[in-house]
Amino acid sequence: MTTKKKKTGGLAGVVAGQTAICTVGTEGKGLDYRGYSIFDLAEHATFEEVAFLLLYGELPMIKELDSFKARLRSKRALPEAVAQTLEKIPATAHPMDVLRTGCSMLGVIEPENSFDDQLPTAERLLATFPSMLAYWHRFVTDGTRIDFESNEDGIAGYFLEKLHGKAPSDLMREAMDCSLILYAEHEFNASTFTARVCTATLSDMHSAITGAIGTLRGPLHGGANEAAMELIEKFSTPDEAEAGIMEMLANKSLIMGFGHRVYTVSDPRNEVIKGWAKRLGEEVGDTVLYPVSERIADVMWREKKLFPNLDFFSASAYHFMGIPTALFTPIFVLSRVSGWAAHVIEQRSNNRLIRPGAEYIGPGSRDFVAIEDREPDGGMV
Amino acid sequence: MTTKKKKTGGLAGVVAGQTAICTVGTEGKGLDYRGYSIFDLAEHATFEEVAFLLLYGELPMIKELDSFKARLRSKRALPEAVAQTLEKIPATAHPMDVLRTGCSMLGVIEPENSFDDQLPTAERLLATFPSMLAYWHRFVTDGTRIDFESNEDGIAGYFLEKLHGKAPSDLMREAMDCSLILYAEHEFNASTFTARVCTATLSDMHSAITGAIGTLRGPLHGGANEAAMELIEKFSTPDEAEAGIMEMLANKSLIMGFGHRVYTVSDPRNEVIKGWAKRLGEEVGDTVLYPVSERIADVMWREKKLFPNLDFFSASAYHFMGIPTALFTPIFVLSRVSGWAAHVIEQRSNNRLIRPGAEYIGPGSRDFVAIEDREPDGGMV
Repeated sequence: MTTKKKKTGGLAGVVAGQTAICTVGTEGKGLDYRGYSIFDLAEHATFEEVAFLLLYGELPMIKELDSFKARLRSKRALPEAVAQTLEKIPATAHPMDVLRTGCSMLGVIEPENSFDDQLPTAERLLATFPSMLAYWHRFVTDGTRIDFESNEDGIAGYFLEKLHGKAPSDLMREAMDCSLILYAEHEFNASTFTARVCTATLSDMHSAITGAIGTLRGPLHGGANEAAMELIEKFSTPDEAEAGIMEMLANKSLIMGFGHRVYTVSDPRNEVIKGWAKRLGEEVGDTVLYPVSERIADVMWREKKLFPNLDFFSASAYHFMGIPTALFTPIFVLSRVSGWAAHVIEQRSNNRLIRPGAEYIGPGSRDFVAIEDREPDGGMV
Repeated sequence: MTTKKKKTGGLAGVVAGQTAICTVGTEGKGLDYRGYSIFDLAEHATFEEVAFLLLYGELPMIKELDSFKARLRSKRALPEAVAQTLEKIPATAHPMDVLRTGCSMLGVIEPENSFDDQLPTAERLLATFPSMLAYWHRFVTDGTRIDFESNEDGIAGYFLEKLHGKAPSDLMREAMDCSLILYAEHEFNASTFTARVCTATLSDMHSAITGAIGTLRGPLHGGANEAAMELIEKFSTPDEAEAGIMEMLANKSLIMGFGHRVYTVSDPRNEVIKGWAKRLGEEVGDTVLYPVSERIADVMWREKKLFPNLDFFSASAYHFMGIPTALFTPIFVLSRVSGWAAHVIEQRSNNRLIRPGAEYIGPGSRDFVAIEDREPDGGMV
């Protein structure tokens, strides 16, 4: 190749393409979806409005939103073959593997036969992920085969109702809705970038989203909210937490839920989710988890100037909603599929194969040695 | 971010990381696996030797190879839940979706619980993909539930036997074995890069390989060998092919199976597979497909100075082996899983999250407008 090669670590700071979907990290702390501030969206919009904004480019009119929500409600039921596949997945499985497999199987049963189907396909995924997660969870925990009928109008309430078998409180429904808004989109993060690399070969929507789920599964990405919960749960008082964190810092242990590759000042989503965690804690009468979380955040700022990211207070917020820790990252999928699908659609609109180069650091040219003449060090006899 | 951003299209010419596994495109035409020329490997080695080289870094000693092959043979059988899932996939499905779903389901049933399991996990995938593909294909075409017993020692012979229900000819077994060597590894191609992006979040092997399969599925990547077959089959004589290609060139139609992002002079794998296609054509008494393929290649070189890549003569070679066209890209998976797994292992050995940036080209900051005040153009009332 004649192109001049630039050496990078993890592609940090390298522009891999263009996007009109999101800006992140402007002045070290901003987050806008299609030009709208995350603070405005979190305070005034619903998740369905935000998903519409991401997929269609503009906030919906009343009629558009009504029609979008009606389509999502009508698309909640799982095909028989997908439900049967989920039933074969044991209770010990990682719930991210459940969604990865469910997404792939849905693509087998209802393939995206043409890119003209991309928006209906995205809506179908948005509508079915809550069903998949609740269906599998209830089947393996209490043997129930849930149905997909519900009076819940939106995804947040529908998911909580199907997960718990009863309607959620208004506060919990609103908190979940806001959490889905916060997790919906984040530019070229690793899972979204996976979806774009896949899409750039002109593969299908299900392949791109299946790949993204597998990428989000990693503890350096979506898995961080689960890791934060495991940390917070270790402590029963704020003082105990402070002592524990000081010890972990002294031992240079990795503390999940703090700092971020693209934010240098703060994670704007933290302020929002922290407020919800506080209110949810009050509703359920918590006197431990929230104070412990707050103290950990204070210590991390005081000692390391590290700010909590979205994952940190999401952990206690989800816990107060009665959600098992193993389902935290899968909830991220229920939301982020809106951003992933928007990126698939955008990549297709101006596509070029994404194929970087590599720096070779292996052995130089070697002569082939017949197997009977080989020596243990790979040299010739 | 303070890092200076570099604008790139599809990351062409950008170094995304280091590798010791492969060099590709040196002087516009070379291909080495861990320092060994593809010509030497194709002529003197078996696919299992090459897979061992990719996974373990050195060519095996006799005892190592025997033990590796014995492990692969012992790992061929599918878990019941995976076989049952495959049976639910209709005959109309894309066979790449079958392997994507089978791989994900295998990861559910037999998760990679620790990175210490990465090599056994890679071997299990190498051993089971031929079983998955043949099992599903036979089940949906003639209702047979194949067993996984075989006297065939290697992957090439095992796959052909299970696919056709009888032992292959020696020439076909050798040709398939060589084809698997040629497709095994190709540096940071799009599917391998997907596997590395996924792996860099510290996700599991099955997630990385599932994502890679979805990426390979695209017609700009693995799908090219199927597209080449569809083209070649259109013509019944070399003269007809020449006229047809000249017409396609005049119409600026895309002709699959020629040129390559990283080769500028020639694709070294073409010479090898072309020789096998010729011999296979002679064995099956072909008088059309091979001469037509050769003429198309001549015309493409004469008119556009474009050389055939590996996919072009693989198409006729596979066809002569009695393989349905829809299975061409899945065979690529049976081979490339060796390279993908080697890259997963390498990425883990010196990991950094792969998270590029993007150039924002969307709307500037916009004030949120309540839904009842919105106008169709997105402006304020």
